[in-house]
Amino acid sequence: MADPWQEFITLARQAGEVVREAIKNEMNVMIKSSPADLVTATDQKIEKMLLSSIKEKYPSHSFIGEESVAAGEKSVLTDSPTWIIDPIDGTTNFVHRFPFVAVSIGFTVNKKMEFGVVYSCLEDKMYTGRKGKGAFCNGQKLQVSKQEDITKSLLVTEFGSSRTPETVRIILSNLERLLCVPIHGIRGVGTAAINMCLVATGVADAYYEMGIHCWDMAGAGIIVTEAGGVLMDVTGEPFDLMSRRIIAANSKTLAERIAREIQVVPFQRDDED
Amino acid sequence: MADPWQEFITLARQAGEVVREAIKNEMNVMIKSSPADLVTATDQKIEKMLLSSIKEKYPSHSFIGEESVAAGEKSVLTDSPTWIIDPIDGTTNFVHRFPFVAVSIGFTVNKKMEFGVVYSCLEDKMYTGRKGKGAFCNGQKLQVSKQEDITKSLLVTEFGSSRTPETVRIILSNLERLLCVPIHGIRGVGTAAINMCLVATGVADAYYEMGIHCWDMAGAGIIVTEAGGVLMDVTGEPFDLMSRRIIAANSKTLAERIAREIQVVPFQRDDED
Repeated sequence: MADPWQEFITLARQAGEVVREAIKNEMNVMIKSSPADLVTATDQKIEKMLLSSIKEKYPSHSFIGEESVAAGEKSVLTDSPTWIIDPIDGTTNFVHRFPFVAVSIGFTVNKKMEFGVVYSCLEDKMYTGRKGKGAFCNGQKLQVSKQEDITKSLLVTEFGSSRTPETVRIILSNLERLLCVPIHGIRGVGTAAINMCLVATGVADAYYEMGIHCWDMAGAGIIVTEAGGVLMDVTGEPFDLMSRRIIAANSKTLAERIAREIQVVPFQRDDED
Repeated sequence: MADPWQEFITLARQAGEVVREAIKNEMNVMIKSSPADLVTATDQKIEKMLLSSIKEKYPSHSFIGEESVAAGEKSVLTDSPTWIIDPIDGTTNFVHRFPFVAVSIGFTVNKKMEFGVVYSCLEDKMYTGRKGKGAFCNGQKLQVSKQEDITKSLLVTEFGSSRTPETVRIILSNLERLLCVPIHGIRGVGTAAINMCLVATGVADAYYEMGIHCWDMAGAGIIVTEAGGVLMDVTGEPFDLMSRRIIAANSKTLAERIAREIQVVPFQRDDED
């Protein structure tokens, strides 16, 4: 098998150019699962572009992409080499031109993350991680922070796109419990992938979220672990890429401490029918 | 009276250089009103630097600065030409090296905002606004967004630094009501001044917050209005710089709509003993 490592950086950069061009124009915004779950023609165009490039070069590989799944494809993770793609992570940001929009590509073999790229295209920041080889942003090595004391921590998370009252209520009550630990603060730039890269960079100590998908985490997950961080389920159990939930933290200590404060929001798994 | 317009841009840039230099080093972090209300020696150093430059050139002017007030100075707005300064807006970000940290300088005459500068020093973005002359970022003219439909809006706000359970509860219940209107989403980069500049830039439709101070709003306030936006109290009444609360929106329509959802958190005014 050829090594897709350089290839996928090139693909992410090309996709980012399409984002930067499209953001200058009027957009036709469509709604998916909720009034806050948006999609545009650009999401679909970029996914098709990435998919056709990858299929041409790696016809035997599997593929999970946000817009293909939205269009009815299954999202089941197998042992095959698998490309997991979010053409635009932060579509709401993209629609508003809020400056954090990422192309995310993850690659798994035997269900394990092998490498990932998150291209924050409006900032022109290329984050990469490769198993055993470290994580980088524009060539600079990344390292998570050392802060294990939750009362001195800065967290990143999002309110999510569900507007179901019960879901919103649990999300806010988790925020309340964490704020009152107390912690230094909570930030959110509007994309799971970039939030996770902020943890990898060490400027945030941990990220958690529920309701996201494998394509939001597959690119950035290995960037966090290769920067010295850990991934954990919000229950404190091992991380599961298809579970739609994550804690990505600088350390096991901080991840476990956050897990103790979080009430789980039930979401259907990515691989459930 | 000499025109301090160019002067204050130069001052903000010099202060930003001090921030960029200081962020490379270890910091000694102190606590003010709550475990989440932080200050460092750099906040104090920059305020002293700005204060001494301004006093030397404009000895008759008044001055309100975050760290001078913390040290016991009064913060009362008079008709005198007044410099209102936040040496580091986003001190928690600064402590964590989260990349949104601003130097904010506002200038009022007869209690009206005449000009303001917000220097987002880690991004190297210089936002300026001058009464009747427009608002700019690195020389590029700013214009608020046109979205007046709250259900299609992107808001910016913060959780604030209070960890008093009742305050946190109201802040979160306001978020809950707004999320469930529904709206597109809520973001927060951790500084009032930069959040307001994001509204001026048009990438967020409105910002609101309670518990902040005049020095968080005095620089960015005129940047928002000169970009075509409006300032309003969270009650829907006229904006009051000393009230510790604000809605900064692209339009009166959106500001009034947000005001209808907000329950007021009681905070002591900046000019109250």
